[in-house]
Amino acid sequence: MIPKLNVLLDATRKFIRKDAHTNLGKMLAKLHPADIAELLKHLSPSERIYLFDLLTDKEQIAKVFSELDAMTRSEMLEHMSSASISELLKEMAHEDVADIIGDMPQDVAQSILESLGPRYSQEVEKLLKYEKDTAGGIMTKDFFALPESTTVQKALDLLRAAEHVEMIFYIYVIDDQQRLVGIVSLRKLIITPPDSTLKRIMVTEVIHVKAYEDQEDVARLVEKYNILSVPVVDRMNKLVGIITVDDIIDVIRAETTEDIYMMAGTSSEELFERSVWKIASIRLPWLMVSLIGETFSGFILKYYHGTMQSMIAVTFFIPMIMALGGNVGNQSQTIVVRGLGIGKIIEDDMWKILFKQLRIGLAMGIIAGSSVAIISLLIQTNYALCFVVGLSLFISITVSGTMGVLAPFLLKKFHIDPAIGAGPFITNFNDITGIFIYLGLVTFFLSYIA
Amino acid sequence: MIPKLNVLLDATRKFIRKDAHTNLGKMLAKLHPADIAELLKHLSPSERIYLFDLLTDKEQIAKVFSELDAMTRSEMLEHMSSASISELLKEMAHEDVADIIGDMPQDVAQSILESLGPRYSQEVEKLLKYEKDTAGGIMTKDFFALPESTTVQKALDLLRAAEHVEMIFYIYVIDDQQRLVGIVSLRKLIITPPDSTLKRIMVTEVIHVKAYEDQEDVARLVEKYNILSVPVVDRMNKLVGIITVDDIIDVIRAETTEDIYMMAGTSSEELFERSVWKIASIRLPWLMVSLIGETFSGFILKYYHGTMQSMIAVTFFIPMIMALGGNVGNQSQTIVVRGLGIGKIIEDDMWKILFKQLRIGLAMGIIAGSSVAIISLLIQTNYALCFVVGLSLFISITVSGTMGVLAPFLLKKFHIDPAIGAGPFITNFNDITGIFIYLGLVTFFLSYIA
Repeated sequence: MIPKLNVLLDATRKFIRKDAHTNLGKMLAKLHPADIAELLKHLSPSERIYLFDLLTDKEQIAKVFSELDAMTRSEMLEHMSSASISELLKEMAHEDVADIIGDMPQDVAQSILESLGPRYSQEVEKLLKYEKDTAGGIMTKDFFALPESTTVQKALDLLRAAEHVEMIFYIYVIDDQQRLVGIVSLRKLIITPPDSTLKRIMVTEVIHVKAYEDQEDVARLVEKYNILSVPVVDRMNKLVGIITVDDIIDVIRAETTEDIYMMAGTSSEELFERSVWKIASIRLPWLMVSLIGETFSGFILKYYHGTMQSMIAVTFFIPMIMALGGNVGNQSQTIVVRGLGIGKIIEDDMWKILFKQLRIGLAMGIIAGSSVAIISLLIQTNYALCFVVGLSLFISITVSGTMGVLAPFLLKKFHIDPAIGAGPFITNFNDITGIFIYLGLVTFFLSYIA
Repeated sequence: MIPKLNVLLDATRKFIRKDAHTNLGKMLAKLHPADIAELLKHLSPSERIYLFDLLTDKEQIAKVFSELDAMTRSEMLEHMSSASISELLKEMAHEDVADIIGDMPQDVAQSILESLGPRYSQEVEKLLKYEKDTAGGIMTKDFFALPESTTVQKALDLLRAAEHVEMIFYIYVIDDQQRLVGIVSLRKLIITPPDSTLKRIMVTEVIHVKAYEDQEDVARLVEKYNILSVPVVDRMNKLVGIITVDDIIDVIRAETTEDIYMMAGTSSEELFERSVWKIASIRLPWLMVSLIGETFSGFILKYYHGTMQSMIAVTFFIPMIMALGGNVGNQSQTIVVRGLGIGKIIEDDMWKILFKQLRIGLAMGIIAGSSVAIISLLIQTNYALCFVVGLSLFISITVSGTMGVLAPFLLKKFHIDPAIGAGPFITNFNDITGIFIYLGLVTFFLSYIA
C-alpha cells in the first residue's frame, strides 16, 4: 500500500520513455501528494516537466506543491505562467503561499500578490512579516477558535460546518479581544452536556508561544510536553495561528541538518544552490580558517627544522600525531555540541563533563600512546623516538579531548552557536598543539634519541 | 508559565541547601512531570534523591518516570525497594514498564514481573518480545478500537466511558478477527448521524506498519504523510498497538544523535555509561583505524625521506595538505551521509551528486591552491616549491571531495551504514593520498625546486 520510492521512480521512468501518459496519469491519480512530491524531487528536469504536465487536478497540484522542497518548487514555477501560478496559489493554504512568495524575487512576488486580489494578498502579506525561522513564520492560520460563551451544542454545530479546516483536535477559546484564554479537546466536547459553555469546560493553562519566538525553541517545547499543536499569540496575546506537530518534525530535521553541516564547515544552503562557485564560497571560509591555522603549524615545523634535519625519522610520525589528536578532539566535541544542541547538556554541566572527558582522554591516551610506541617500531627502530612518539600522543590526546569540551562551552558562553566554531577551529588548534608538543618533546629528548 | 530549566535548577538547589522541603514540595506539585524529569537529570545524585523523596503522589511519580532517560531512571530505581518499584510500575503504561524492565538485569526483572501479578506481567512480557528499535518496541497499547458494526451513537457512548485512554483522535475499526480494517476520526464521528455504523463512515486505506518494522522507517512514514499516530499490526494483520507522533519525535532525535556520534567515531551509548574505560573502548576502534591508516602515511614519508632530507622546507606544508584535504572530504561526505540518512538523497542520485561535488572540489581546489601558493611564500621563499604545494592541494582537494561522495554510496550499496564508515576511514584515506600526491609531485619536480 505504501509505495517504495525506487519502485515508483522505475515505473515512472518506464512510462515516460514509452510516452504512456494514460497509464502514468492513472498511477498519479492514485498516489498520495507526498509520494508525487518525492518523485518530482528525484526525476531529471525534463522528466519532471513531463510528469507535472500530467497533473490536472488543481487540488492535487496544490497539495503536491505544499510538500515540495524550495528548490524543486521554484524550478516548477519557472515553467508556469503567472496566471496559472495565481490560480494554483488560490488553492493553497495562506502559509504555503507566503512561503512560496517569500522565495520569489521582489517584483515577481509583487505582481503575483496583486493578481490574488486585495483580501487574499493582505492575509499573505501579514504572514510574510514574520521571520522565516520564528513561530510566526511556520504557523498555520488553519485553526478553529470560538468565544468562551459558546455552548457545547453550538460548538458541535460549528464544527460540522467548518469543512475547510483540515485537522481539528482542539478548539481554542478566545475572549472578545481575540485573546487566547483556554483550550477544549474534541473528546472533552463529546463527553460534556450540550448546554454547558466552553468557558466552563476549558483548560485555562494553555502552553503557547509568541509569534516572534525562535522555531527551535518551539520545537523543544512541543517535544518536551508531547503536544500535538501549539497556539501562537502576538504581543497582545491575540491568537494568530497554530503550529502543528508535523511542522515541528520538519523544523527538527532542518535544524539538525543545519547543525551537522555547520560542524563540517558548510551549510544546508548548499542543497538549494545550483551554482558551483556559490557553494564553494559557502565552504571557503572554513578552508581559509584551516589555511591560516596550518600556516602556524608550518611555522612550528620551520622553527624545529633543525631537529627534523638531524633525524628525518621524526617527520614520519607527524600525520599520526595530527590524526589521532584530531579524532579524539572531534569525538568529545561532538558529544558536547550535540548534547548542548538538544538540551541534554546545559552550561551548568561543564565541569562535570570536562572532568569525565579528561579521564576518557587519559584512558585513551594510555592505550593509544603505548600502541603507537610499539607500532612505531615497524617504521623505524629507534626505541627512544618511539617512546617520545607514544608520550606525545598521550599528552596531545588528553589536550585535544579537553579542548573538544571547553571550546563549545566557551562559544556558548559568548552566545556563538557551538556548532559553527567547533569543527575547523578545534581541529586546527589541536593540530598546532599536537605538532608543538611532539616536536618540543623530541627536541628536548634529542640527546637521548639521536 | 513555562519555567526555564536554569531558573528551576537554581531555585531547587537553594531550597535543598536550606532544607526547605515544604516550599520545594509546593513547587514540585505545580510543575509538569517533564520539568521535574529535566530537573532530576541535571541535579547531583544526592540532590536527586532529596528531590525524589519529596514526590509523594504516585501518579505524578509515574509520569515523571515515563519522562526520564534510562540512566537517571536506573539510578533512581537503585534507591527504591522492590515493593515500591512494583507499586510504581502498576501506575505506569505497559510500554513504559516494558522499557524499564527491559533495562534491568534478568533476575531483578523476573522478580519484579512476578510481583506485578500474572495478568499484568503477561501483557508486559508480550511487549518485551519486540526488539527495542522496532515498531513493536515503541508502540503503546493505549488505543481505542471498535468493531465495524458499532453505531456512531454507541461509539460516542463508549468514548465517554473510556477515561483511561489518554489521547484519542482516531477510532480504529477492527473486524471479528481483530484485524485492522478502517479508521474514523473523532471529527467524522461528530458530524455523522448517530445511527450510522462505523463500517459505513470509516476510511479503509489506513497507513499502518508491521510490528517488526524498523523504528526509523516508521519515523520516515509518519514524517512523509504528516500523520499523528500510526497503527501497528502483527503478521496476521491483527491490531496490536499504535505509535503516536511524540514517540516518533524521540525516535528522530535518538537516531540522528546516533548518526552524528557514529560519524565522529563514537556512540550515544557513551552518554549512558559511567565507566571511563568502557567509553574509551567504544571509541578506541576508530582510533585504531587511524593508527593503522597513519602508519601507512608514515611509510610514505619514509619512502620519500630523501626528498625531505634534501629540502627540509618540504615538510612544512604536510599539515596544510592533510588538513585542507580532510576538510573538503569531510564537507562532501557530510552532505551525502546526512542526505542519505534523511532520504533527501537516494542511491540513484550518485552520479549526479558525484559530478556536482567534483565541480565544487575543482572550484575550491583552484581558489585554495592559489591562496596556498601565495601564503607559502610567508613560510619560505622557494617559488617552485610554492607552486607544487598549490598544485598538490588542488589535486588532493578534488580527490578528497570525490572520495567523500563515493565512500558513503559504496557503503550503502554493501548495506553498511554510511555514518559508520564515513568519518575515520575517509579521513585516513585522504591523508594518505594527500601526502602521496604532495611528496610524489615534489620528488618529480625536485630538479626544478632545489
